[in-house]
Amino acid sequence: MDGDRRARAERFVELHREGCFLLPNAWDVGSARILEAAGFPAVATTSAGIAFSLGRPDHDFFAEQGAEGRVDRETMMRRVREIVDEVGVPVSADLEEGYGEAPEAVAATISMALAAGAAGGNIEDFTGDRTRPLYDTALAVDRIRAARAAVDAGGEPFVLVGRTDALQIDASLDECVRRANAYLAAGADCAFVPGAADAATIGTLVRELDGPLNVVMGLTGNALSLEDLRALGVRRVTVGGSIARAMYRHLLGAARELAERGTFSYADDQLSQKELNDLFR
Amino acid sequence: MDGDRRARAERFVELHREGCFLLPNAWDVGSARILEAAGFPAVATTSAGIAFSLGRPDHDFFAEQGAEGRVDRETMMRRVREIVDEVGVPVSADLEEGYGEAPEAVAATISMALAAGAAGGNIEDFTGDRTRPLYDTALAVDRIRAARAAVDAGGEPFVLVGRTDALQIDASLDECVRRANAYLAAGADCAFVPGAADAATIGTLVRELDGPLNVVMGLTGNALSLEDLRALGVRRVTVGGSIARAMYRHLLGAARELAERGTFSYADDQLSQKELNDLFR
Repeated sequence: MDGDRRARAERFVELHREGCFLLPNAWDVGSARILEAAGFPAVATTSAGIAFSLGRPDHDFFAEQGAEGRVDRETMMRRVREIVDEVGVPVSADLEEGYGEAPEAVAATISMALAAGAAGGNIEDFTGDRTRPLYDTALAVDRIRAARAAVDAGGEPFVLVGRTDALQIDASLDECVRRANAYLAAGADCAFVPGAADAATIGTLVRELDGPLNVVMGLTGNALSLEDLRALGVRRVTVGGSIARAMYRHLLGAARELAERGTFSYADDQLSQKELNDLFR
Repeated sequence: MDGDRRARAERFVELHREGCFLLPNAWDVGSARILEAAGFPAVATTSAGIAFSLGRPDHDFFAEQGAEGRVDRETMMRRVREIVDEVGVPVSADLEEGYGEAPEAVAATISMALAAGAAGGNIEDFTGDRTRPLYDTALAVDRIRAARAAVDAGGEPFVLVGRTDALQIDASLDECVRRANAYLAAGADCAFVPGAADAATIGTLVRELDGPLNVVMGLTGNALSLEDLRALGVRRVTVGGSIARAMYRHLLGAARELAERGTFSYADDQLSQKELNDLFR
């Protein structure tokens, strides 16, 4: 990691020290540059958005079907590096389940993310298999411990996030808290709990967790604002694949207008070539 | 080119034989798959959309500044191949000015587009330099002739499009017609005239040109529908970077809502993870 990337990663670590910040999720260089231009101090990646931009499926916690054909680790890392190379802000990588069950696989993934210039990354405990959705806690902890060791071996600043999908698969809040705290104890710098979307659940997590909490917003019908989340004590807010999925809704609407009506009104609201060139120059 | 690609290219050639069809422009695999799913019989690429997805500028005919840092040929071809590999419909490549002034450069670009599996491609006469915006007609014709020879040498079906940017740089309609007909005579299968956006101009072009006409729609305030264009005798309608630029408007709106208000209402209208996974599986 060169000096610029180290400085970025140090700024990213600093962002987690106090208060609450919004870390929006990009899927390619263009989306990352737009988010950077909007003033965010850092961007994350979204495995869902990256998968969709490549025409691939992503994990779905609510589906019977698995995500066969999802994006492989090398492709994900290439995209992370592309983004890191073209933005000036720190980039946190969605590393999914670490691309392998074994702690060694997770450690290798962390080393690759560091090499790609990421300032942080998430490792989740969802196996991708609905019949056995979460790694056993002992293994999940070993995976985070291996990730921590890989970060420490790298000797570079990096925000390691332990994500538990316990609430996504309808485990109890107690189980969720136990797992998140176990990951923090194993060396995660921040706990990420998708599925925590109401004030009561989020308030309990803030009180019970022994470290900073990341929640994800951007599901349809989202009721809380950044200010609400800040008041609840959340440290970091991501939006997952929601921006990407909103773009795809817009794209599908334009495609249908073209295909079904043969009209072009979708184009009445567009950025100009000049505005985009000015953004990307 | 394997059998599947040859069959696709043959279908693409066939689409130009009669009537009028809409050929929307994608910038990555995801957007191409969505357009395919909407029922289009073929898709084109957009150099603007591809550039923006990579955080790079694209040519702008109305700007003083050039497009320094625009996407290089290898990167463009890699993106074309990615799209060809992941959709089932024919793909026509935006080959800009052929990535070089010399006819040999244009010929090499065509050979690369064929190798990438494209079923067609556009070569334009805009130099990218506002002080000398169009290649001299003689050179522009040699460039199309070289492109034609490269297609014929490849021995594969391929729709070669000669594009003149005469109207974009405020040359006369006569000059535009002369150039487009010269390109058709030099071996282009179809003439593309950006900037022809009203019924009178388009009607004149259809009458005066010695081959099929492609026009581009999707500029703000577009007044003609596909049916209008069909009635005028247009053979093919593309939309340039307009779908991409509309997506970026939507993205910038979401980014500003997040950054300025800290709310998530952009997310109320999104495709679900399941809908997108079903599209991409």
